[in-house]
Amino acid sequence: MSKKIKLGILGGGEDSLIGILHRVAANMFDRFEVVGGVFSRDFKESRQFAEDLGIGSKKVYKDLDQLIEGESKLPADERIQVVSILTPNFLHFSMAKKLLENGFHVICEKPLTTTYGEAKILEDTLNNAKTIFAVTYTYSGYPMIRQMKEMIAAGEIGEIQKIDIQYYQGWINPIIHNEEQRNSIWRLDPEKSGISCCIADIGTHAFHMAEYVSGLRVEKLLADLNYMYPDNKMDVDGTVLLRFSEYVKGVLRASQTATGEENDFTIKIYGKKAGLKWGQESPNYLYKIEEGQPIKILKPGHGYNSALSLDGTKLPPGHPEGIFDSMGNIYKGVAKAIKGEEYHPGEFPGIKDGARGMNFIEKVVASHAEGNVWVSLDN
Amino acid sequence: MSKKIKLGILGGGEDSLIGILHRVAANMFDRFEVVGGVFSRDFKESRQFAEDLGIGSKKVYKDLDQLIEGESKLPADERIQVVSILTPNFLHFSMAKKLLENGFHVICEKPLTTTYGEAKILEDTLNNAKTIFAVTYTYSGYPMIRQMKEMIAAGEIGEIQKIDIQYYQGWINPIIHNEEQRNSIWRLDPEKSGISCCIADIGTHAFHMAEYVSGLRVEKLLADLNYMYPDNKMDVDGTVLLRFSEYVKGVLRASQTATGEENDFTIKIYGKKAGLKWGQESPNYLYKIEEGQPIKILKPGHGYNSALSLDGTKLPPGHPEGIFDSMGNIYKGVAKAIKGEEYHPGEFPGIKDGARGMNFIEKVVASHAEGNVWVSLDN
Amino acid sequence: MSKKIKLGILGGGEDSLIGILHRVAANMFDRFEVVGGVFSRDFKESRQFAEDLGIGSKKVYKDLDQLIEGESKLPADERIQVVSILTPNFLHFSMAKKLLENGFHVICEKPLTTTYGEAKILEDTLNNAKTIFAVTYTYSGYPMIRQMKEMIAAGEIGEIQKIDIQYYQGWINPIIHNEEQRNSIWRLDPEKSGISCCIADIGTHAFHMAEYVSGLRVEKLLADLNYMYPDNKMDVDGTVLLRFSEYVKGVLRASQTATGEENDFTIKIYGKKAGLKWGQESPNYLYKIEEGQPIKILKPGHGYNSALSLDGTKLPPGHPEGIFDSMGNIYKGVAKAIKGEEYHPGEFPGIKDGARGMNFIEKVVASHAEGNVWVSLDN
Amino acid sequence: MSKKIKLGILGGGEDSLIGILHRVAANMFDRFEVVGGVFSRDFKESRQFAEDLGIGSKKVYKDLDQLIEGESKLPADERIQVVSILTPNFLHFSMAKKLLENGFHVICEKPLTTTYGEAKILEDTLNNAKTIFAVTYTYSGYPMIRQMKEMIAAGEIGEIQKIDIQYYQGWINPIIHNEEQRNSIWRLDPEKSGISCCIADIGTHAFHMAEYVSGLRVEKLLADLNYMYPDNKMDVDGTVLLRFSEYVKGVLRASQTATGEENDFTIKIYGKKAGLKWGQESPNYLYKIEEGQPIKILKPGHGYNSALSLDGTKLPPGHPEGIFDSMGNIYKGVAKAIKGEEYHPGEFPGIKDGARGMNFIEKVVASHAEGNVWVSLDN
Repeated sequence: MSKKIKLGILGGGEDSLIGILHRVAANMFDRFEVVGGVFSRDFKESRQFAEDLGIGSKKVYKDLDQLIEGESKLPADERIQVVSILTPNFLHFSMAKKLLENGFHVICEKPLTTTYGEAKILEDTLNNAKTIFAVTYTYSGYPMIRQMKEMIAAGEIGEIQKIDIQYYQGWINPIIHNEEQRNSIWRLDPEKSGISCCIADIGTHAFHMAEYVSGLRVEKLLADLNYMYPDNKMDVDGTVLLRFSEYVKGVLRASQTATGEENDFTIKIYGKKAGLKWGQESPNYLYKIEEGQPIKILKPGHGYNSALSLDGTKLPPGHPEGIFDSMGNIYKGVAKAIKGEEYHPGEFPGIKDGARGMNFIEKVVASHAEGNVWVSLDN
Repeated sequence: MSKKIKLGILGGGEDSLIGILHRVAANMFDRFEVVGGVFSRDFKESRQFAEDLGIGSKKVYKDLDQLIEGESKLPADERIQVVSILTPNFLHFSMAKKLLENGFHVICEKPLTTTYGEAKILEDTLNNAKTIFAVTYTYSGYPMIRQMKEMIAAGEIGEIQKIDIQYYQGWINPIIHNEEQRNSIWRLDPEKSGISCCIADIGTHAFHMAEYVSGLRVEKLLADLNYMYPDNKMDVDGTVLLRFSEYVKGVLRASQTATGEENDFTIKIYGKKAGLKWGQESPNYLYKIEEGQPIKILKPGHGYNSALSLDGTKLPPGHPEGIFDSMGNIYKGVAKAIKGEEYHPGEFPGIKDGARGMNFIEKVVASHAEGNVWVSLDN
Repeated sequence: MSKKIKLGILGGGEDSLIGILHRVAANMFDRFEVVGGVFSRDFKESRQFAEDLGIGSKKVYKDLDQLIEGESKLPADERIQVVSILTPNFLHFSMAKKLLENGFHVICEKPLTTTYGEAKILEDTLNNAKTIFAVTYTYSGYPMIRQMKEMIAAGEIGEIQKIDIQYYQGWINPIIHNEEQRNSIWRLDPEKSGISCCIADIGTHAFHMAEYVSGLRVEKLLADLNYMYPDNKMDVDGTVLLRFSEYVKGVLRASQTATGEENDFTIKIYGKKAGLKWGQESPNYLYKIEEGQPIKILKPGHGYNSALSLDGTKLPPGHPEGIFDSMGNIYKGVAKAIKGEEYHPGEFPGIKDGARGMNFIEKVVASHAEGNVWVSLDN
Repeated sequence: MSKKIKLGILGGGEDSLIGILHRVAANMFDRFEVVGGVFSRDFKESRQFAEDLGIGSKKVYKDLDQLIEGESKLPADERIQVVSILTPNFLHFSMAKKLLENGFHVICEKPLTTTYGEAKILEDTLNNAKTIFAVTYTYSGYPMIRQMKEMIAAGEIGEIQKIDIQYYQGWINPIIHNEEQRNSIWRLDPEKSGISCCIADIGTHAFHMAEYVSGLRVEKLLADLNYMYPDNKMDVDGTVLLRFSEYVKGVLRASQTATGEENDFTIKIYGKKAGLKWGQESPNYLYKIEEGQPIKILKPGHGYNSALSLDGTKLPPGHPEGIFDSMGNIYKGVAKAIKGEEYHPGEFPGIKDGARGMNFIEKVVASHAEGNVWVSLDN
């Protein structure tokens, strides 16, 4: 009998991009086995999808309630142990809550919920449940991000004095400039998507990365969002001034109207001794710069890399790994946690990271709405 | 019951890098299921490895003969259908031959065999067997390589007039410069590794790529190899002049002594109208250059990409995929072929590509041995 | 007799970097001849420097007053026609004023003056003088900046919707973190340098570039500066939110504490149809990005470049020109203006650009001082 | 009276690209003054050109003989001291010879002559003349090339084991593929241009660079040229196998049919300890790579640079200098030599470098003509 962890998935059916990303990641280290779930609201389609995946439809359910009921009846070693939530954002909260209350481990896509309030409730639920909970800030699994995090923690760049993060995309242009489209797409409809578009979708990735890599926490922020048209209800672009402490400042720039940009997510951190720079589109190159020294480019898989970084690299230097491998590393960490193996706290983001992201989104929108003023995060 | 293709693996156990590459690739599109094989010469270790993979040891065998015997007894739908050969080179031939003779599909690592003669025999065997046979020239699965191939086929750069291929690594330096090591490592021992080191290991990748992407065939070649020391028996570096036809020339440079290089595999093809350039370490960037025009960089996942290229990309532009994804595309092609689905002839290299690689190796070594003279390939 | 324009220089003696930059630029197109000036406060050194330059000391003067007096006596065709002011900032105003009042053309380093008030006075003086006045925002002379400017003017990226400018350096680190040094260096002494360090020194370059290239004007701004220590009196880092119009926003980031950065000045402009990106350290590469299209890299010297861009390139594509060539282009424009030849208004920045830079500096400091609030520029 | 060195120029009139390159370079360090010469075969045009340069036509002569005659009559301190030869190749020899025989210093464009025989004669002439003679292998003046040379000399990469040089351009495509053009252009007419096109024009730059930077000498070579059409008489592409010593090999690739390439001149040198890589189109970046170490990028103007490199950089790091600055460094070296100042032997290439280039051209053509066989250079 397979010793792999039994994984159920909510959403992610058919041509879902997030679906294939999670499945490949789950399979990557032979630790998980996708066994079923609810892939689609249409039960028939859901079953067909499972057949196409070659996993049979035995563990495909009509909805989450039936999944919980069905699985709970089974002996422990036949049961789905962990569920990945890949459904639209507004469903995350209720699904995660139910799963936790019924003893399942959970892997949840970001943003964790649609409000910070929900996120706080979920944190309480998890505290009682004591299962494993991961939020997939995918980019934090890249080996060179882990390397950057550990170099900073080890003092290699000295005390941090400046953080500059950018997440630029251009895909929303054809939508935002079309009156009909911008007033009909779910992404720009607050009822379906919460209070923010750009900041919630990509700004949170940037915010999480800034804190994850630096080990610092944002104290307060001042945001300037762009809605582009009077009839548009959600931000599609924003710049956020960050204050980590009185003299440690940062700036976060996120945009879905940076025409022509694909997924240009970069982070630059400057310490008293050196700077570190990384960009998601060429994720295997980490730049270390120091006054009066040659620029250094660190790559994955080398003896000079940290243990956490090396644990996330499968092949020798020069064999580029990518975003699937990054997500694979997050799943690997979750597997270790579920199996009770030792793991590094940086291997996967948890519920606190997810809740913090929600806090960030709400504060950004508030800062802008109040006239671009400083507002404090919960700390 | 799972509809996935049942895959057995020979070799690739424990920390094998090639092992994880093949497993991740096989899992990538939910088309294969690793069910067993012979992971190690040590039966116990082999079984333990299967347990660690979470697949159980039911289909783990002592050796290939037992695997063939055991599987052949089973009903067709329980049988291993395809076997990946990841063992040392000198075992490829006999293993592949047996598998073919017993009706298995085969996925074989390169180089296909240790001699061109063996490769020709294997070709005959396959002709009788009529199963599917793939040789894993891994790099040919990259989306932008497929794009390059199809742009050239579509005439986008005009008639080809020059091909320049480089495959530089530096890893053999500490070995080659140490007398004891260079005289003891299996890589440099002709009895264990055949007649070539550098050309057989990486030169063949470059040679395959040149012909795969260009659609041309090398007619003759002139090689200059470097053995570095009088007591060293195998090439660690070589430059090969290529003649595709009287006025279409090329040069292939391969090295394991290019100190500090990781896996710097690049190809440049110049046609009458434009040039195309690609490098493996940044595989998602294809450069098109034309006299008097801005340089164009093509990336994967765009509407402008060819169907074959798009079929090999899983996420939208800006989400970098890497070498695991490239190998995954090759496995995907094999899955289509096994299932009798339509597929593009460029989806995976076959036995002819493998045999041609052996022909290349032997001719390169002959050209050098005879004093750097022109020798013809079988065509 | 030489028909070259007779150029005098104030400052820029000995090992002055700005001195060699201006001299090389002036010589570049055989249009100017450096004939004298006041290279140093020490008359003897000044004369010696002229001898070293090989120009003889006939036209070397003790100070500006003597220069004006001496030259004014000469027949028109023997007189210094234009004077480059390369002295410390606080001297720019009085020197430029005198020169204008005495009929000289002036080339002045930035920042134009130390206060916006002075700049306004200088504008009036020039209006009366009707001579030529250039402010050397050096980077605006790069061929690909001119290309960018003209592509935008021609509508190639559509209506601008977002501007992102960065000017990062790290050189002040060893000074700012040393209590004694930060309290003694003239750069951080408001009495000697005016009210700003980082914004005045490099922020103004970025501000000028944003307006120069885009053709837009900043309406208001909100700034967050960093002084790093309570005892430090001048900004060494700052982020400025820019508002060009209600829905056209921008962000300008300038820093002298971006550890390890050399002169990382970049500009990205996003229009409704496309984006353009340029970086000063690789100045011959202009990136054009469009949704669903290959990235395009434009280089100098091609038929596809604008006339203004081509006028600034001396050699065929592939022969990299640099910052001396950029400044050379500015001098070339000044030469045309002095000679009464036709020239493009974008060939050199004028007094209005210099005054606008002063307005910017004062508004940035005010916005920060008032608690990071929006302040309007004169428009 | 000006103490600048009086420079005369042969050729380089009107829109000549090589003309502006030499003039800017000569002016760069205030060491030379262009005073006259023979800018054109048409005396009137030549005089007009001098007027346009603003230097007056006093020292413009009808031809070289008159120049020599006219200048020789003048007192030493009024005489042209050094002459730059920028005329078509076939004129270099006779002009240089006359100038040397009459006591002038000479700066000569490459290739030095049209045959190796002429070059040897010129060497003898110079031995008697004892003036200064420079051959403008322009690229050797780049600061990072000097840095590379000195790092290698200092043993920083260990014993050299492999050299890989490329010089690719694509400009000849429209000519070579047009029957009429390829049979009429002077570049492809052996009577006007000597025995080689591609190798003589750019291959020699690559050859000089290989020996200049490495400090090694090519012992023998084997060349494969491409003439593209039966009716074409001169090479437009070639690959040359280089042998520095039995186990130190290299390869030089030069092409004018590398479609879309501008001036892609790169050099890679691999030693036992490290590799160094440089490319002309981004000349301020020198890559040092070592097994198991981060990649290092060295840039100009840093404390870690060699004295020779620093002497060739005028501004602080981050201010890109280009090809004019590279040529300027060569002129600076010549100025030092003429003035009897101390200078580094690597500051400018001399007649031996020029003659060696001619030897190289002839041997390459011979190797190809004899069927791609090894031929030895004079050593």
